[in-house]
Amino acid sequence: MSIDLVTQILAIMATVAYAVTGVMAVAEKRVDLFSAVVLGVIASVGGGTVRDLIMDVPVFWSQDLLLIRVAVAASIVTFFTMNYLSHPQIYKAFLYIDGIGAALFGLAGAMKAYELGFAWPLGVLIMGVISAIGGGVIRDVLTGRKTLLMSDEVYAVPVAIGCVFLAAILHFFPERKSEALLIGTLVAFTLRTAAIYWNLRLPLWFTTLKK
Amino acid sequence: MSIDLVTQILAIMATVAYAVTGVMAVAEKRVDLFSAVVLGVIASVGGGTVRDLIMDVPVFWSQDLLLIRVAVAASIVTFFTMNYLSHPQIYKAFLYIDGIGAALFGLAGAMKAYELGFAWPLGVLIMGVISAIGGGVIRDVLTGRKTLLMSDEVYAVPVAIGCVFLAAILHFFPERKSEALLIGTLVAFTLRTAAIYWNLRLPLWFTTLKK
Amino acid sequence: MSIDLVTQILAIMATVAYAVTGVMAVAEKRVDLFSAVVLGVIASVGGGTVRDLIMDVPVFWSQDLLLIRVAVAASIVTFFTMNYLSHPQIYKAFLYIDGIGAALFGLAGAMKAYELGFAWPLGVLIMGVISAIGGGVIRDVLTGRKTLLMSDEVYAVPVAIGCVFLAAILHFFPERKSEALLIGTLVAFTLRTAAIYWNLRLPLWFTTLKK
Repeated sequence: MSIDLVTQILAIMATVAYAVTGVMAVAEKRVDLFSAVVLGVIASVGGGTVRDLIMDVPVFWSQDLLLIRVAVAASIVTFFTMNYLSHPQIYKAFLYIDGIGAALFGLAGAMKAYELGFAWPLGVLIMGVISAIGGGVIRDVLTGRKTLLMSDEVYAVPVAIGCVFLAAILHFFPERKSEALLIGTLVAFTLRTAAIYWNLRLPLWFTTLKK
Repeated sequence: MSIDLVTQILAIMATVAYAVTGVMAVAEKRVDLFSAVVLGVIASVGGGTVRDLIMDVPVFWSQDLLLIRVAVAASIVTFFTMNYLSHPQIYKAFLYIDGIGAALFGLAGAMKAYELGFAWPLGVLIMGVISAIGGGVIRDVLTGRKTLLMSDEVYAVPVAIGCVFLAAILHFFPERKSEALLIGTLVAFTLRTAAIYWNLRLPLWFTTLKK
Repeated sequence: MSIDLVTQILAIMATVAYAVTGVMAVAEKRVDLFSAVVLGVIASVGGGTVRDLIMDVPVFWSQDLLLIRVAVAASIVTFFTMNYLSHPQIYKAFLYIDGIGAALFGLAGAMKAYELGFAWPLGVLIMGVISAIGGGVIRDVLTGRKTLLMSDEVYAVPVAIGCVFLAAILHFFPERKSEALLIGTLVAFTLRTAAIYWNLRLPLWFTTLKK
């Protein structure tokens, strides 16, 4: 398989995972099919959309609707199969795929910022994190849920660390784009996977309630 | 009367209705005059603003402030006459005009996406829905109210169906813009009016709480 | 000191104040270091970012990351020294500096709209208010707090009045930019300072709960 095909397949998997976890997250609320699809699509493509708006480039899905179609389809399927998907084992599987999604979307966003020369070097980190968590945050705001920023889930930090690896590698080896992207993504994914597997939470003393 | 004049008058009516229902929606909260005007204006022009940002064209009110001025004036009048406007019969009248607004704003937004060739064909639907409900959703987020996406009101779906009609007609008859716009708007408005008149709600089995 | 240096120092002070009050505002919630920095940075630069997106110019920090770095540093320091900063006298001092920030950010945003010829004259007022309160409003939405628009704090109105002064002066004396900026900023700051000092609140009869 070519690199492009691998990238494409990974992007589709990540989009599905984001849509599935995006719709599942509002399952306990009263949401109709239309809203479920809207929220699933927002969870999937919202982060990349905000990233592109801030970098002032055309939103990525305006060129190619494939990922939106995938998100719509995944959201509809999730809506009708929610009872099966909420089975702990299946949901856990999606959490890991969602972790792949966070790593892929985050690092792809960081790389896009790098290639556009956007606000180097902090821009790489900022756009990476926005790409990874933006969609979920918007979904939470629209549904009245506590956003990721207020949760003790270790979600954004792995992506941020992956972006720091990416930026560090590109700083020293500007030519090594593929390697930087691969390593950054693996770092983010490994840390996120560890957080899911060991159910890591941020220690209380590391929060504003520390005293 | 020329078509342009009719369009202009309809846009002003829709803007007034959005501002009135926008301010009325926060009446039970403690909102001062300044915030009421800000929220009324956001409810009126917020959807079109988000649409234009995503399509990367100048926000529509930057060229012509008329609709913002209308929204400001309508918000101020609403603030001071709220007790009269909340009379059930008068409020109901505004609900219907708001339905005209949703149809007009939604379909005008869909047509704008079509003319810009933005993400055809799904972009027409997405931009139509954002134009119609975006402003109200932002207002609800800013005031801590449950957003439209979490309500069982049949509001966005009529607009979405109108946009599908518009896209279908334009797909087969790309020259028939006026007819497509007229039919799409009528479809959206008729469905929304029916929803208000018969107080239609989405059936529970059609929601995530179906089981 | 040159005017540019003074402007730069004032912008840094304002950024620090926004980050400090931005992080302090979420102190009673459970927020970890990473989220605290994200929220502090959003409170600092969010308003100007939204302003630049709406005016369709590059976001101001994409050219120069200094203010983002300052916001990051101030947020980290605030996170670790929160117990000291919450001392009433120190916090009060930051409230006044935050008032300088609101005046500076608001009027600088208004001036930017004027220089870009954006939606004159209302655009000057709208962009001024967004620059001053946008970041805080986004932070509040992300953390589930009541936004400024729903509070009886006299915060946005002083900025709005300052922007009206700016626009009025520029209308009659288009050449007098420095004077207009200085007077507008002083008006906004004086009114905001008075509101803090005398703990001014909007009178109840001036709200939707007036009856």
